[in-house]
Amino acid sequence: IPAIHLHVTAATMQVSQKDFEKAQEQLKLLKKDPGNETKLKLYALFKQATEGPCNSPKPGMLDFVKKAKWDAWNSLGSLSQDSARQKYTELVSSLISAESAGQTKDASPDEKRHDGYEHIIVTTKDNITKIMFNRPERKNAINHKMYREIIKALQEAGKDDSTIAVITGNGEYYTSGNDLNNFANVQPSDMEKMAKDGAKLLKEFVACFIDFPKPLVAVVNGPAIGISVTLLGLFDVVYASDRATFHTPFSQLGQSPEGCSSYLFPKIMGLAKANEMLLFNKKLTAAEACAQGLVTEVFPDRTFQKEVWTRLKAYASLPKNSLAVSKQLLRSMEKEKLHAVNSQECEVLMERWTSDECLNAIVTFFQRKSKL
Amino acid sequence: IPAIHLHVTAATMQVSQKDFEKAQEQLKLLKKDPGNETKLKLYALFKQATEGPCNSPKPGMLDFVKKAKWDAWNSLGSLSQDSARQKYTELVSSLISAESAGQTKDASPDEKRHDGYEHIIVTTKDNITKIMFNRPERKNAINHKMYREIIKALQEAGKDDSTIAVITGNGEYYTSGNDLNNFANVQPSDMEKMAKDGAKLLKEFVACFIDFPKPLVAVVNGPAIGISVTLLGLFDVVYASDRATFHTPFSQLGQSPEGCSSYLFPKIMGLAKANEMLLFNKKLTAAEACAQGLVTEVFPDRTFQKEVWTRLKAYASLPKNSLAVSKQLLRSMEKEKLHAVNSQECEVLMERWTSDECLNAIVTFFQRKSKL
Amino acid sequence: IPAIHLHVTAATMQVSQKDFEKAQEQLKLLKKDPGNETKLKLYALFKQATEGPCNSPKPGMLDFVKKAKWDAWNSLGSLSQDSARQKYTELVSSLISAESAGQTKDASPDEKRHDGYEHIIVTTKDNITKIMFNRPERKNAINHKMYREIIKALQEAGKDDSTIAVITGNGEYYTSGNDLNNFANVQPSDMEKMAKDGAKLLKEFVACFIDFPKPLVAVVNGPAIGISVTLLGLFDVVYASDRATFHTPFSQLGQSPEGCSSYLFPKIMGLAKANEMLLFNKKLTAAEACAQGLVTEVFPDRTFQKEVWTRLKAYASLPKNSLAVSKQLLRSMEKEKLHAVNSQECEVLMERWTSDECLNAIVTFFQRKSKL
Repeated sequence: IPAIHLHVTAATMQVSQKDFEKAQEQLKLLKKDPGNETKLKLYALFKQATEGPCNSPKPGMLDFVKKAKWDAWNSLGSLSQDSARQKYTELVSSLISAESAGQTKDASPDEKRHDGYEHIIVTTKDNITKIMFNRPERKNAINHKMYREIIKALQEAGKDDSTIAVITGNGEYYTSGNDLNNFANVQPSDMEKMAKDGAKLLKEFVACFIDFPKPLVAVVNGPAIGISVTLLGLFDVVYASDRATFHTPFSQLGQSPEGCSSYLFPKIMGLAKANEMLLFNKKLTAAEACAQGLVTEVFPDRTFQKEVWTRLKAYASLPKNSLAVSKQLLRSMEKEKLHAVNSQECEVLMERWTSDECLNAIVTFFQRKSKL
Repeated sequence: IPAIHLHVTAATMQVSQKDFEKAQEQLKLLKKDPGNETKLKLYALFKQATEGPCNSPKPGMLDFVKKAKWDAWNSLGSLSQDSARQKYTELVSSLISAESAGQTKDASPDEKRHDGYEHIIVTTKDNITKIMFNRPERKNAINHKMYREIIKALQEAGKDDSTIAVITGNGEYYTSGNDLNNFANVQPSDMEKMAKDGAKLLKEFVACFIDFPKPLVAVVNGPAIGISVTLLGLFDVVYASDRATFHTPFSQLGQSPEGCSSYLFPKIMGLAKANEMLLFNKKLTAAEACAQGLVTEVFPDRTFQKEVWTRLKAYASLPKNSLAVSKQLLRSMEKEKLHAVNSQECEVLMERWTSDECLNAIVTFFQRKSKL
Repeated sequence: IPAIHLHVTAATMQVSQKDFEKAQEQLKLLKKDPGNETKLKLYALFKQATEGPCNSPKPGMLDFVKKAKWDAWNSLGSLSQDSARQKYTELVSSLISAESAGQTKDASPDEKRHDGYEHIIVTTKDNITKIMFNRPERKNAINHKMYREIIKALQEAGKDDSTIAVITGNGEYYTSGNDLNNFANVQPSDMEKMAKDGAKLLKEFVACFIDFPKPLVAVVNGPAIGISVTLLGLFDVVYASDRATFHTPFSQLGQSPEGCSSYLFPKIMGLAKANEMLLFNKKLTAAEACAQGLVTEVFPDRTFQKEVWTRLKAYASLPKNSLAVSKQLLRSMEKEKLHAVNSQECEVLMERWTSDECLNAIVTFFQRKSKL
């Protein structure tokens, strides 16, 4: 489900050259990057509107950016310049109105907001530190900066006065996982360095969850994909809305499991259930994830936030040291093993990221996305 | 649910001074200690009846016994001396009749009863050695003597000719877990010694379950609390009445998990389910405990004993060595790890027992109990 | 449920001496060994038909073969020679027609069939190597030769170009497990050698499953018994028909668990559920096995093959190396442990196979089988 829909019902209305130029100006006022998918659509429609059908030669396979742009443009076929102008204008308009509807959230007035974060919101209230993914227009996809922000927020939450920490998402998604744009702008010659740096960052990121010294709760408000699913095995409690789904399409992308899931998922649900997810990309409903022990409890979406936060406030009023000591006791049985698993998973992924299977799968992914 | 209720319907009937004195004599004839909760009520009513409303200064926080008595007396407020006499007499009468109703059980005639136990009944019949918690008037709470008796009974059952061993409870409860009176009479200066001795006893107790060499079955006849729940992970089969509940309120009491539950519960049900119990005190129904793998099967209370014992007799007629060897094979995979976990859990608990969080939580517990 | 039923409705029809002799000739044309159970019935009926009621002295306890034959004959009591002739003739007729109905299967024309196997069929198609147990007339019981053939087929499938491997059974059963005839013809003096060789073969067999380098899927088409159940913990995905059942009657036969089940079953379903199967012989339905994590998903028998193979073809079209690397990653966490468990299980079994409990249980088993 893309976050932004074209206004297809308005498709018959003609758009003037003036409207088209105005739209180009409005686009510059957008505060948030609308994401590569949308940018490719905008690029293609602009080219079609101004130059007509795609007329440049097809770029090489590994020149991701040029290739994606060319694909996007080429996919418009013989769409008329008028229609392209119109679609472009509508798309910009939908972006502007989505942004002004305030999809990106501010902390509520009674929460203490922590400074210095762009892609997440960190607040403290009622002995609870809350870390909220905040790129709703990108389905809360995690780019490199956001990985680093989450690391920092967890390190601080581990030391502050709160009793428990909570991670959740803003908007429709919990998070769509690793932002594939992390791969998109890499030149073939930089592939190996990208893979090495990526694996190092991932290992540090997952280690923060392994070492987190207090109860850590996931409040899964909507669909969760990839690393955000595999990490759930490292949370102490996982509450999910019945709108949530759990999907780890690793093999489809030529990749392999991380977040200690290769060890924890078979432990939680048995190999027979774990592998249908981790090898064969089965997407679980919230009820299925709960039946298989990945999720603690599922709530109707309508009352989800209210029921969960009532419960979390009660938890956060329990003896703080007792909770921390008990959590650490439980984790201590596994900590060494989990760090070893994390290392091994990141090494396998590093190899994967430079494999042909992975590159082809990602190219295919962007090709599919670039089609209007 | 307290085991003994006051006869509130008789509350309007006047009680003479003679009846009151007779009640004091009858009280001395009780064979079983009625438990601290009841003793505090008796103390308070006696003081109120003979001296009127509480008039002594409030004792210090850490003088548990004096404080609990004072709280109990003080909680009676301005209750009249007549009413106090009456309530005292009724309470003694209810204790006497409960005892003469034979709530504490003897072995049935065809069972071979093992000698030398006060708080448990140990019998052998049909190749099954049965260990029954037998302090029904205290909800089978486990005091220090009872811990030692269970250790002894398990050591003997491991060596005797029986094929399997069974643990169950007499009365309404399976067991309410560690008797908090184990803490109640400790002077502040003895706190550390109490914690050290308690941890040593607990470690030895749990080790007996880890090392038990034959199939061990829990027949959970009613509510189970604390250590009696955490230990279930060390049983081979757990049958439960649908009246049974499973509750581990450790953090509420400022304590931490034991019985190898910090390792076994996440293994059995996944961390997300285990932590809601072990960290956040969630009480499970029998059906929930079964769905999460802690319980093998649940039976309607009405037919529970009959169905379970029919099955156990069949099990106990299987080839004895095959069962013992298979059980030991399964346990051998984990034995070393389980002993390490047990040690670590007991060390953490020893620290917990001398913490302010734990002391305050226990004081609060007795205060609440001492209120009529 | 025996695979072959006597035609009891024809029991009143008289059979001539000629028919009886013809049946004896037809019996020689059977291509497949009908199994000891049937051979004992045939032996007994032949003796009864030609010599009348059993008149030879009872052989010694440990002379399995003679004892089983004697038991079979003796169990016919005073059955008339006419009736015996008739039953003999009917039994041969049912064997002939079962065989000509082609219960043993050939590969379908578009599958590449691998040569050199007698008791299994190995084919490759759509990137899937399929290993099918093929002794339907013996409920796919695994004799020593079949163990060796499966080892060879797995070693080859691990190296061939296929993406995934699948194991399934031909006919009504998945497999009835270890063929007890593996024990039947052993002389008392050879007991120890038999046990040693058996344990060595079993260890090698299970090791192939531990080390298998690609996704391995079980397609459980019907009842599964013994080693075929315990091995399921080593598969990546397990699909079952709703006709399937899962039974591990080890203690009943004086034996002990193998296939790494003593480690994996408690990991998958918790000790309380695992031990009811592994110690106390509880037979699970497909739905129960699925609820407890041993089975990935259950399908109605009517649509089982179609639904499962559609899914498997889709899986086999995923990036091959990604799947293999991910599977190996998941297995690597446990490989060393699993080999250690396998060794220990085989050592315990070796001791079991020479124990009186086991010998008596097997004698009883054949006695029961030899009764018509």
